Amino acid sequence: MNRTHDVGLTSWVASAQGHPDFPIQNLPLGIFRRRGQDDAPSAGVAIGNQILDLARSASALGVPGGAMAELCREPRLNALMGSGGERWSVLRSEISGLLASDSPLRSRAMKVADQILVPQAEAELFVPAAIGDYSDFYASVHHATNVGSMFRPDNPLLPNYKWVPIGYHGRASSIVVSGTPVRRPWGQIKPPDADHPVYAATRALDYEAEMGCFVGPGNEQGETVPLDRAEEHLFGLSLVNDWSARDIQTWEYQPLGPFLAKSFSTTISPWVVTLEALEPFRVPAYRRPAADPAPLPYLNGTRNRASGGIDVTVEVLLGTARMREAGMSPVQVSQGRLADLYWTLGQMVTHHASNGCNLRPGDLFATGTISGPTRESRGCLLELTWRGAEPLVLPTQEIRKFLEDGDEVILRAYCHKPGAVRIGFGECRGIILQG
Amino acid sequence: MNRTHDVGLTSWVASAQGHPDFPIQNLPLGIFRRRGQDDAPSAGVAIGNQILDLARSASALGVPGGAMAELCREPRLNALMGSGGERWSVLRSEISGLLASDSPLRSRAMKVADQILVPQAEAELFVPAAIGDYSDFYASVHHATNVGSMFRPDNPLLPNYKWVPIGYHGRASSIVVSGTPVRRPWGQIKPPDADHPVYAATRALDYEAEMGCFVGPGNEQGETVPLDRAEEHLFGLSLVNDWSARDIQTWEYQPLGPFLAKSFSTTISPWVVTLEALEPFRVPAYRRPAADPAPLPYLNGTRNRASGGIDVTVEVLLGTARMREAGMSPVQVSQGRLADLYWTLGQMVTHHASNGCNLRPGDLFATGTISGPTRESRGCLLELTWRGAEPLVLPTQEIRKFLEDGDEVILRAYCHKPGAVRIGFGECRGIILQG
Repeated sequence: MNRTHDVGLTSWVASAQGHPDFPIQNLPLGIFRRRGQDDAPSAGVAIGNQILDLARSASALGVPGGAMAELCREPRLNALMGSGGERWSVLRSEISGLLASDSPLRSRAMKVADQILVPQAEAELFVPAAIGDYSDFYASVHHATNVGSMFRPDNPLLPNYKWVPIGYHGRASSIVVSGTPVRRPWGQIKPPDADHPVYAATRALDYEAEMGCFVGPGNEQGETVPLDRAEEHLFGLSLVNDWSARDIQTWEYQPLGPFLAKSFSTTISPWVVTLEALEPFRVPAYRRPAADPAPLPYLNGTRNRASGGIDVTVEVLLGTARMREAGMSPVQVSQGRLADLYWTLGQMVTHHASNGCNLRPGDLFATGTISGPTRESRGCLLELTWRGAEPLVLPTQEIRKFLEDGDEVILRAYCHKPGAVRIGFGECRGIILQG
Repeated sequence: MNRTHDVGLTSWVASAQGHPDFPIQNLPLGIFRRRGQDDAPSAGVAIGNQILDLARSASALGVPGGAMAELCREPRLNALMGSGGERWSVLRSEISGLLASDSPLRSRAMKVADQILVPQAEAELFVPAAIGDYSDFYASVHHATNVGSMFRPDNPLLPNYKWVPIGYHGRASSIVVSGTPVRRPWGQIKPPDADHPVYAATRALDYEAEMGCFVGPGNEQGETVPLDRAEEHLFGLSLVNDWSARDIQTWEYQPLGPFLAKSFSTTISPWVVTLEALEPFRVPAYRRPAADPAPLPYLNGTRNRASGGIDVTVEVLLGTARMREAGMSPVQVSQGRLADLYWTLGQMVTHHASNGCNLRPGDLFATGTISGPTRESRGCLLELTWRGAEPLVLPTQEIRKFLEDGDEVILRAYCHKPGAVRIGFGECRGIILQG
C-alpha cells in the first residue's frame, strides 16, 4: 500500500471528501462522454460527484503522461486493462497526485477545471470495455445450496461443487450499462401442471446480485495461470446484475445449462474499481468447514488462503412504480458479502485458464449470485422469497414473488473498515419494461 | 436462383473446373494474406486452387465496386456480413461475372492474374470474423438420444428436447482456424471409482463434427426475429470442430452445462459458403415422426417446413502419427447430413432471438454434433465408439476410444445432387499435441 490509500489524503475536488463511493482513495475508471455531445467516448475517473477526463487532463496537464495518455483516449478500456499492473499503479499514483489537495499542479488544474472535470450528472456512461467473452461463476455455496434445495431437496449441493469453481459461458452482446431499461423477455415456459410449453412473457423475472471482474493482461491459448499469479490478470471489479427468467430457465436448462433465461440482458455498473484500490480491504479466503475437502493443489495456495478474499458489501434495493408515485425511495431487500464466496477471484481465474482457455484484456467474469448464510443475505428473489413461498412485502403493502413491470432494481456495493476510507462502486440500476 | 448457379458456367481460372469444393458456382469468402508477407489480412474468394484477392481486384478491375470494395479491404468479414442480402447478392454476381469464362473483363483480369490471384498453397488463412459471441446448439436428435442413453439409460431424451432448440453459450476467444494444433487440455477429472477428482490431462479427448453459421445483419436488443425472416440474418456456413474433453465434461457439467470441457479450443474452417451458394441444395426441414409435437407457432412456418433444410454431407476423417509414418492417408470414420437435424438454421436464429437477445454481424452459432440414425453417421467418438465400448480399429490396427496425441481430425463437407454442380467447404483440420 502507498500514499494513494492514506486516510488523511484529501482532494481539491471538494465533493470527494466524505463521498460514500468516490473519495480520492478510490479512483475507479470508466468510459464516458459529455451528455448531448458528439465527442467520442474516452476514459475518465470518478472523483466525488465529478469525472476527471483523462484525455483532456493528459492534453492540458500531462497527467497521465506517456503511453498511458494514448490509452485513455480510446473509446474502451481494453488496451489500458491489458497494459498490466505496473502501468496501472503508475496511472493511479499520477491521478492521485494530480487530484490531491497538496498537488503541485493544483492551481493549474483548477484553472482548467471546466475542461478536465465533468459533473457525473452531465455525463453519459458506457460499458467500460469491449467484452470479448463473458463467463459467470457460481461461487456462493449458500446460493448453490439454496437453489439446489429447491430443485433437488434430497441432494441440494452436487458432488462437484466443493472441488470445481463451477461456471458457464454467458452472452456478451447483451451486457448493458447501468440505467438501461430491461424489457421483460418472452420465452418457452412449461407450467408444472401443463402438458406442453407456451411461448409467453416470463412470469418469474429475477435479478442476481454479483460482482464482475475485468481481465487485465491475458494468457496465451494453451497456457495456464498459476494461482500465485492469477491476480496479475485481474484489472478491477464492477457490479453485475445477471437478470434471470426463472420459468424459462427451469424448462430450458437441462442438459446444457442456462441460455435464453439469461441472455436477454445483463447490467453492469460503469465504474471499474481497481484491485489496487481494494488493497486495504483484503481478507482471508472463505474458511472451509473442517469436513470440506481442501482445494486441489492447482487451486490451493498460501497467499490465496491468507488474503485471497476482498471484503465488499453488496446491497440490493428495490423500488416499484407505486413507490415512486408515492415519492418513496427504493428499499433495501438484501445485503451480501463478496468474502462469503466459496472461491476467490484468483481461484476463478486459475480454474478458467486451467484447460488452456485464453483470457483476453477486457473479458469479464462474474461471481454468480452473492448470497450469505442468512435470509437477509440472499442475493436474488428466487432465494429471498424461497421460490415465491415467502413473498416480499414492500412498504406500499405491495407483494413481490418476482419482479413486476415498472420495478427498479439497484445494486450498490462498498468497502468499509476502521482505519481505511470507505470506497464504493456506484450503482448498477435497471427498470423493468413490459415485455 | 440465377446465372451464378448454372451448371454450364465455367471459369477462366482453370483449376475451378471440376474442383470438388470451389468451382465458380461456390465462391466462398474468407480472410487471408500471402504467406510470409506483412500485408494486413483482407477478403478473398476461393476459386479452384486459387484465391481471388478482392481488395486488389477492386483496385485493378473495379470488381467489387463501390462500398463493397471498402468492406473487402477490412481484416475481418464482420462489416461485409452485416451489409445484408442484397449487397451479398450483388457481390456474388459481380465476382461470378469477373471469373466466368465469358467475362468481358477476362483479358484484363488475366493480365493482372499474378496480382489478383494467390495460390491457396501460398496463403495464410484466418478466422473469418471477429466472433463477438459463439453459441452452440444441440440440434441432432440422434446425437442427443445417443448421448442421453449413455448417461441416462432410462430417460435418454429430456422432455424439453422436441420443444426447445437446446443451445448454450460457448467460448469465442479460443476459436482457431483450421490447421492450428490443439493442445490436449488439463482439467478436473473424477474417475468413477475414485473418491476425489484429480487435475490431469484429459484421457477422453473427442471431436464433434458441426456446421457453424455466421450471423449477417443483427437484431436490436429487445427485438425478436420472426421465423419467416430468420434467414435474412444468416450470412453463410463454415465447418466447426467443437473439441470436447469428455471426462472433464462429465465431472463439471452439472448444473450449468459444459464449460472448460469445450473452451480450450474450437476449430473453424476458413471459407464461409454463403446461403446463396447453397440455394440449389435446399430441402424440406426434418420430417418429424407423427408422434412428435408440432413446433410452437413461433418456430413453425410453411416456408421453413418446405425448404428450411440444406442438404450438406459432413465427413470426418482421422489420421494417426503411425499412419502418417506409413504414408497412409486419413480414413473416413463417419458421414452425417445437415438435413438430419431436428431443427433448421432458421429455427435456431428465431429461438436465439426469441427472448430479445441481440445477435451481431459476425456472431457464430454452431449446430451441435451432426449425427444421423446409423452408426456410420455418428459425428463424435463418444457416440461412434459408444463411450469406448466399441473402439475404432484403424488400418494400422491401432485402436481408438478417444483421440491420442498426434491424431489429426479432418472435417469435410459438400453438397451434391443431380442437376447441380458439387460445391464444398474445404477442410477443418486439427492435430492433437501432448498436454
